[in-house]
Amino acid sequence: MTDYISEYKKKTKGSVKLFDKSLKFHVNGVSHNIRFFEPYPFVVKSSSGKNLVDVDNNKYTDYWMGHWSLILGHGPKPVKDAVKKQIEKSWMYGTVNEQTIKLSELISKAVPVAEKIRYVTSGTEATMYAVRLARSVTGKNIIAKIDGGWHGYTSDLLKSVNWPFTESESTGVVNEEKIVSIPFNDFEKSLEILKKVSNDLAGIIIEPVLGGGGCIPANADYLKGIQEFCKKNNSLFILDEIVTGFRFRFGCLYPTMNLDPDIVTLGKIVGGGMPIGVMCGKKEIMEYSNTKGKKKTERSYIGGGTFSANPMSMTSGFATLTELKSGKTIYSKINSLGDFVRKEITKVFDGKVIVTGKGSLFMTHFVKDGVTEVINSSQAAKCDTSLLNKYHFKMIAHDGIFFLPGKLGAISNAHTKEDIKKMINATENFQE
Amino acid sequence: MTDYISEYKKKTKGSVKLFDKSLKFHVNGVSHNIRFFEPYPFVVKSSSGKNLVDVDNNKYTDYWMGHWSLILGHGPKPVKDAVKKQIEKSWMYGTVNEQTIKLSELISKAVPVAEKIRYVTSGTEATMYAVRLARSVTGKNIIAKIDGGWHGYTSDLLKSVNWPFTESESTGVVNEEKIVSIPFNDFEKSLEILKKVSNDLAGIIIEPVLGGGGCIPANADYLKGIQEFCKKNNSLFILDEIVTGFRFRFGCLYPTMNLDPDIVTLGKIVGGGMPIGVMCGKKEIMEYSNTKGKKKTERSYIGGGTFSANPMSMTSGFATLTELKSGKTIYSKINSLGDFVRKEITKVFDGKVIVTGKGSLFMTHFVKDGVTEVINSSQAAKCDTSLLNKYHFKMIAHDGIFFLPGKLGAISNAHTKEDIKKMINATENFQE
Repeated sequence: MTDYISEYKKKTKGSVKLFDKSLKFHVNGVSHNIRFFEPYPFVVKSSSGKNLVDVDNNKYTDYWMGHWSLILGHGPKPVKDAVKKQIEKSWMYGTVNEQTIKLSELISKAVPVAEKIRYVTSGTEATMYAVRLARSVTGKNIIAKIDGGWHGYTSDLLKSVNWPFTESESTGVVNEEKIVSIPFNDFEKSLEILKKVSNDLAGIIIEPVLGGGGCIPANADYLKGIQEFCKKNNSLFILDEIVTGFRFRFGCLYPTMNLDPDIVTLGKIVGGGMPIGVMCGKKEIMEYSNTKGKKKTERSYIGGGTFSANPMSMTSGFATLTELKSGKTIYSKINSLGDFVRKEITKVFDGKVIVTGKGSLFMTHFVKDGVTEVINSSQAAKCDTSLLNKYHFKMIAHDGIFFLPGKLGAISNAHTKEDIKKMINATENFQE
Repeated sequence: MTDYISEYKKKTKGSVKLFDKSLKFHVNGVSHNIRFFEPYPFVVKSSSGKNLVDVDNNKYTDYWMGHWSLILGHGPKPVKDAVKKQIEKSWMYGTVNEQTIKLSELISKAVPVAEKIRYVTSGTEATMYAVRLARSVTGKNIIAKIDGGWHGYTSDLLKSVNWPFTESESTGVVNEEKIVSIPFNDFEKSLEILKKVSNDLAGIIIEPVLGGGGCIPANADYLKGIQEFCKKNNSLFILDEIVTGFRFRFGCLYPTMNLDPDIVTLGKIVGGGMPIGVMCGKKEIMEYSNTKGKKKTERSYIGGGTFSANPMSMTSGFATLTELKSGKTIYSKINSLGDFVRKEITKVFDGKVIVTGKGSLFMTHFVKDGVTEVINSSQAAKCDTSLLNKYHFKMIAHDGIFFLPGKLGAISNAHTKEDIKKMINATENFQE
């Protein structure tokens, strides 16, 4: 490990200088906690296709891909052309605009539940509004989420994110008692917890593939059971598809499991890398947020913000989805690269790992403490996360391959089978 | 009024078609409640300099200016050049980048309290984190805000925003009891309320000029009194300068009043029209959010999000601030245009209005029900807001001048004295 750190230090002399400066201005040198890694993160100056380029001109084949938002790779030409054109028409109106209507037309066709769409600026905002809306519609207060489920930093969902799930995530959060947490893919135990709060349960929010929680797909039966419970209990069933929306197919993941959520949140891919959050859902539910002709005490006060539906995000999202729609082979290509990578990494580590994921998303878990499967975040947390960090860091330092250490990898359309093979090769050369 | 509506309808035939489509996809046709106005908002296709251009090719001299974020006007050349260059280097990295460090260097020099800076994606996120941090630092729970104070849609501050302040703003909000509200510019009454909650008071958040609350500047003595109370009470003094930061001078408004806040939030202008929110403050306070080496229960879990410090917003913000810094006469020009407009509108309406504001921000209040001054949001709310909407709509329909109906106006560097005179002229022709 010491060798990799010196190898890294040797090639990132420009980064260390700049990161020292960044430490002067920013707590821990970053604006997002997870972007820091030891000894210091390299500093990026540009990106293109599959690559991140740092200030020392090191190129990294990138599997972080902008928090998994860049399904076409960095700066894909059709999106770049569209956003350059939009820049000429300017980037901020603060009004209703043409670009929004075009994007909504595309999304509403691909996502059946999106009878009404509201654009916001981030995923954190989208889930905050989803929670508020569920409370407004039901008149109830409690929200259930998954142990290890990550829905952004909103105060309304900041509980049971990181292991140990029983401990608070943060000081300074005042409404934790309004959130309960259930174990992923364990319907019986989930039901037990839900029944205790059923009278005041406004809704349940779930990612169909846990993202931050370990790249773990939900069991369709589990989700169906939860959905059924929601319907019977008059609680809303909310799917957070910020990571999964348009990731595996042109649309959301939920229709492939015959689900019928009330509200869906989107983000990342649908903004093509520009800031976006989306809350969409059934008309009769979304209408609670209509401020027209409603008193303050009748409405669900759901905003958007200064930057909601800004023409840059709308244009970038529209160009990205258009490309995904017309590029018939993109999904089959990246999904099968995902299958390939899961198989190969499993083979290389020969019993030492479980590789979770779905389609183009994958994550390597080094088993420990008798873990034999990874179907929830507790099992993921019990795996050897420091060994995963080492494995990822070795590739950063030695192989020009970037995973945000400890996080799942995302394959984009800019990656080739050759790239994947190089990564497998780098995996083979990893020594604990 | 009927005449103006038909005049508007005649010239916005393309807009009405598109807005009908927008109604199909979006609740009330919009992604931000305030962007709707009767009979329907025009649909923008581009903007440039002082103008918004709608899909029917109507040009509007714009005083809304992207929720007041565009101090240099729409698409100013130096910013446009910089963001076009950045597009070539791509628009999303998800990592530490050079562009962030450059912007922070500028901000930290101009804003003394910004010893540490955290970029987030929206103002709503910035104020949410400011509240969380205040609670973490003090170990207390209650946040005080101003009657009519607007800090975005965060659940943590969604109370006493719109008249009547005693009524809830929304269904579905669960922690209203942790927010108290005090009357702007009335120190005695504020103190009375604050004293009742002093034991559990984590902080007080105030805009030094109320934005959404009526464009009303704070009295320096009022703010000093509040600050003093905070220091004595071990509560944090938070200034929300999302609207006022870099609006009147190169930096924040607070140093001109000799204030010493603990946390300041920024947004709008510092992102040059691209999505941004900023939380900055004193080192020892911001350090509570450092996740390095801290347990979950010790840290203030403050994020950023997928799009925090993205290179587009950083570049656009840097180019905007650089232009403001080098353009020595910008502030004196727009501030004096503001003085001029306040004087002239007051003159035209001859006793019927009070024009509030400061520098390049102004708002016309049609007095009613014996209102003799507008120094807080209650007085602003008692004024004839429907007449204000009428006045603004008349200018939209008849004069090619855009104010978001009922909202304050912002003068940008793209406006000339000639533009202002035209607006005064349009004001003279307004018949109730």
